[in-house]
Amino acid sequence: MEIEDSRLGQQLEFIREIDRLKTVVRETYLADLSRKENSAEHSWQLALMAVVLREHVDGEVNLERVVKMVLLHDVVEVDAGDTYAYADEREEQIEREREAAERIFGILPEDQEETFREFWEEFEARETPEARYAKALDRFQPLLHNYFTDGESWKEHGLRAEAVLERNDPIGESSEELWDVVEKLVDHAVEKGWLKAGDGSCHSSS
Amino acid sequence: MEIEDSRLGQQLEFIREIDRLKTVVRETYLADLSRKENSAEHSWQLALMAVVLREHVDGEVNLERVVKMVLLHDVVEVDAGDTYAYADEREEQIEREREAAERIFGILPEDQEETFREFWEEFEARETPEARYAKALDRFQPLLHNYFTDGESWKEHGLRAEAVLERNDPIGESSEELWDVVEKLVDHAVEKGWLKAGDGSCHSSS
Repeated sequence: MEIEDSRLGQQLEFIREIDRLKTVVRETYLADLSRKENSAEHSWQLALMAVVLREHVDGEVNLERVVKMVLLHDVVEVDAGDTYAYADEREEQIEREREAAERIFGILPEDQEETFREFWEEFEARETPEARYAKALDRFQPLLHNYFTDGESWKEHGLRAEAVLERNDPIGESSEELWDVVEKLVDHAVEKGWLKAGDGSCHSSS
Repeated sequence: MEIEDSRLGQQLEFIREIDRLKTVVRETYLADLSRKENSAEHSWQLALMAVVLREHVDGEVNLERVVKMVLLHDVVEVDAGDTYAYADEREEQIEREREAAERIFGILPEDQEETFREFWEEFEARETPEARYAKALDRFQPLLHNYFTDGESWKEHGLRAEAVLERNDPIGESSEELWDVVEKLVDHAVEKGWLKAGDGSCHSSS
C-alpha cells in the first residue's frame, strides 16, 4: 500500500511494533494475584499514577513530559525483555536496551526518533525533576503491588527489607512524602513476615 | 495503617482499584494474534498513539488533555465491563458506566474526583477538539489491529465495510488525513475478503 512509504506509514509501523510490549511479562503480580502484569499495562498505570500523585512531588514538574516518559520508558523491552529489579545481569541489559532503542525508535520519522530517544535517555539518566518523578513511579508501582498482594513476589524471592529500601531509593529523590509511605509499607511488611528484617534475622513465614 | 485515612490513602486505593482494568478483555486481538487485548494495555497504546499521530489532527489540540482523557476513558469498565463496538446493548451500557464513574472516581479526593469525572464526560460528549481526537484514537486503534491481523475480529463477526466505516466515522471528525487512511484500509480489507463489501455482495472467503 502507498501509505507504507509515507511519514504516517512509519508511524503506523511503530504503533504495530510496540504492540509487542503487551507480551513482555514482569515479575509484579496484578493486585488480584490472577497473573503477572505485562510492561504495556504497567506503563498505563504509571501514567495515571503520574497524574494522581503529582501533588506529592518535591518542586515543580512538567506533567506532560513525565507522562510521555513513562509511556515510553519500557518500549525497549520489545527487543530487550524485562529484567527483574533484583537480578545480577543489569549491565548486559543496559547494552541490549541501547540497541533496542536504536532499532525501535528508528522506525519513526527522524524528528520523532530523536525526540523519543531523548525522552528515554532522560528517563534513564534521572537528572531532571521529570525523570526523577518518572523513575520514582516506576519503583513505587511494583512496591505497592507487592504490598497489595501480601508481599507475594517479595516472598517468592525471599527479599530483605534492606534490599527493598535500597532499590526504592529513587522514590525519595523525587518525593519526601512518598518516601515516608515507602518506609511505613516496608516496616509493615516486615511485621507481617512478607519481607525479611533488614538486620539479618528472619520474620518470614517461608 | 494511618495512611488509609489520608488524601494519599484515597489516591492509593484508587490506584489499587483501577488495576482491575487489566482484567477487562476487549474484542481486539494483539497484532501477533496471541490473545485478545485488555483495556489497560489498550489505553496505554492510545496514549502513545496520541503523541505519535498528533500532527495529523485538524486544528489545535492540547496534548496533555488528550493523553489524560485516553488514560482515563475506560476506567469505568472496572465495574461496567467492555461492550463490543457493534453490540446492540449500548444503551444499558451507558447507564452502567455512569454508575461506575460515580463509584470509581468517588474513591479519589473530591477535587480529583471532579476533574476526572469531567474528563470522562468530555470524552463521551465528543464536543471539544481534544475529546474528538481521543475518540478518534479509540476507534482507530482497533481498526488498525483488525488490519494488522488480516481482519481476524471482522471475519469472526462477519462485518460489512459499511458498518465499519459508519462505526469509525469519529475518526473523520478529528482528522481528514487519518480518515483517508481508514478508507484505504477498509477498501483493501474488502479486496482481501476480510470485510464484506458495503453493497451487499460478499467477498469474504468465510
